[in-house]
Amino acid sequence: MTRVHNFCAGPCTLPLSVLEEVQAELVDFRGSGMSLIEMSHRSTEYSAVHMDTLALFREVFGVPDAFSILLLQGGATLQFAMVPMNLLGPGEQAAYVRSGTWGNGAQDDAAHHGEVYTAWDGRDLRYARMPADAELALRDGTRYLHVTSNETIEGIRFSEFPGVDVPLVADMSSDYLSRPIPWNRFDLVYGGVQKNLGPAGLGVVVVRDAVLERTNRDLGSYLRFDQHAAKDSLMNTPPMFAIYTMGKVLAWIRDLGGAGAMADRGARRSGAVYEAIDTSDGFYRGPAEVAHRSHMNVVFRLPDEKLDARFAEQAAGEGLVNLKGHRSVGGIRASIYNAMPDDGVEALVNFMSSFAEANA
Amino acid sequence: MTRVHNFCAGPCTLPLSVLEEVQAELVDFRGSGMSLIEMSHRSTEYSAVHMDTLALFREVFGVPDAFSILLLQGGATLQFAMVPMNLLGPGEQAAYVRSGTWGNGAQDDAAHHGEVYTAWDGRDLRYARMPADAELALRDGTRYLHVTSNETIEGIRFSEFPGVDVPLVADMSSDYLSRPIPWNRFDLVYGGVQKNLGPAGLGVVVVRDAVLERTNRDLGSYLRFDQHAAKDSLMNTPPMFAIYTMGKVLAWIRDLGGAGAMADRGARRSGAVYEAIDTSDGFYRGPAEVAHRSHMNVVFRLPDEKLDARFAEQAAGEGLVNLKGHRSVGGIRASIYNAMPDDGVEALVNFMSSFAEANA
Repeated sequence: MTRVHNFCAGPCTLPLSVLEEVQAELVDFRGSGMSLIEMSHRSTEYSAVHMDTLALFREVFGVPDAFSILLLQGGATLQFAMVPMNLLGPGEQAAYVRSGTWGNGAQDDAAHHGEVYTAWDGRDLRYARMPADAELALRDGTRYLHVTSNETIEGIRFSEFPGVDVPLVADMSSDYLSRPIPWNRFDLVYGGVQKNLGPAGLGVVVVRDAVLERTNRDLGSYLRFDQHAAKDSLMNTPPMFAIYTMGKVLAWIRDLGGAGAMADRGARRSGAVYEAIDTSDGFYRGPAEVAHRSHMNVVFRLPDEKLDARFAEQAAGEGLVNLKGHRSVGGIRASIYNAMPDDGVEALVNFMSSFAEANA
Repeated sequence: MTRVHNFCAGPCTLPLSVLEEVQAELVDFRGSGMSLIEMSHRSTEYSAVHMDTLALFREVFGVPDAFSILLLQGGATLQFAMVPMNLLGPGEQAAYVRSGTWGNGAQDDAAHHGEVYTAWDGRDLRYARMPADAELALRDGTRYLHVTSNETIEGIRFSEFPGVDVPLVADMSSDYLSRPIPWNRFDLVYGGVQKNLGPAGLGVVVVRDAVLERTNRDLGSYLRFDQHAAKDSLMNTPPMFAIYTMGKVLAWIRDLGGAGAMADRGARRSGAVYEAIDTSDGFYRGPAEVAHRSHMNVVFRLPDEKLDARFAEQAAGEGLVNLKGHRSVGGIRASIYNAMPDDGVEALVNFMSSFAEANA
């Protein structure tokens, strides 16, 4: 097998050691005589996997005891609805930062399930940066401020989360567990795991227990955070394979040093690609303002669209795949999640250099 | 490896050939240089798997062209809420059959999202059977009648689906694709796949296109059937591993002859266990009325609880595992889904015979 370097925006590269372990255990899980995917979610074997995964997520991400961790289905998109459904009581409002494709989508979906307003809109800036605290227009009595910690498509992130008087809710899908976060500012953090943490089909919601005590109960059971919390995310059959695989990725992250080590790793690796951009005499140009550049999704353009296409094609020929930018913005996007090996980044930087030399 | 016979109510046994194929492809999917679980859901490779799985589901289950097939997350439990959210317009009502644990749960959840009423309640009969058509109390203008085609815990099923003037909605989680169904009576069929069709973390909704044209649009995007249908269930990142694995199970079912062959298989195999019950001189007793006996979940009791426990324990010692009944009803439950091999059923019947002889 020739393993490629996969720069896809998600789902994306997982650690090879994790894939090999999953493969080895797939038909007969640890001598049980059956596969994990054939197992009761109430079995002793699966329960251990499930609870270990929850504990590892807490350990590796430094989640304080005052929060519950929920393993849910439907990805971040279902959370766009579940968050306002659960958190907004009658007459309460939530503020949203329109920071790009995902921030806008979160607000548009939430508007069907509660009263929401725009605290800041990056559209006129073409989503080149996140807002400063002073730019956030927050109304009195706002229940929460929703932010998207990293915009996958536009390639920007909050390098610091807002410091405001309103509790934060963050969609961290595209930089989940890539850095420590100031938990004291948050009521809730959520995200799909299919970029940094595991296979598609699993979302993780981290919610403050004090919030759970007053969530909406007038909902079907799957839609209630408090029900999932009360049952350790075993209220109904959970996405067991994704949870099991995420557990292995979490152990891999722990062994590398946890969220702090992932932050260093992200800064170093995205930094190498940004340096290649900044030292290319304008051949490569990134749309994001420097202080707001994503550490996960490095977005840039070449002098014209034909060169963008040639770049992606030639790179693929050298085993650097999925570098084409999102169809809505074009250009190139190199997604460098936790599991991308260093030599993938090195190969990309070398390719950028030789491509620029040949085509400048 | 010693493979056990797993009679779990779900998740449960998958075909060994499917597990072996998944294992072989896990690290490097068909020479792509990556795992399927690392792949973009927009990639050529995954798109082919996704569309093939949809087509196979339609072929094997005989789904008419007038229906769309949706691959969703959240299991049947999320559908308890999504069905009334999408189908019930202002002022409309839905009727529910309270046939056991799952039928009751469906109605209780739906009540949070629309006006629902009880068409029939099996509680006073201890859920020993399903209703006859004439027993269903249906009000004029009822939007749909919700039935649970098979009650996993109580071990009963509709041997014939109701023939009434109201469109049917069925939760088929525990006998999905185990028999052909009269599609003309249905507006919608749904179920989790983790019993008959694949790993946990995937639900399939089959919905009439004419229904999609008038579903509720005032919902977050994940909660809208019409959105999933319009995007071939690729609106957001789908549970790719579960879809891929289900595709392999569907191919296995196709090769055995499809839904009709599964119905024969279910009748023959459950029939062998029911015969062991009926010829045991009362040592084994099943609570379900004969005509309503489930073909998937054979529920029975022994003369006392100590014998129930000894039966399950000794059976496990012989590699027949997960025979303990659900904690809410006790006794023994042998779940015999599509993928249970014949020799598992044969071994169970032989064990029942020798256990009765030794303990009668």
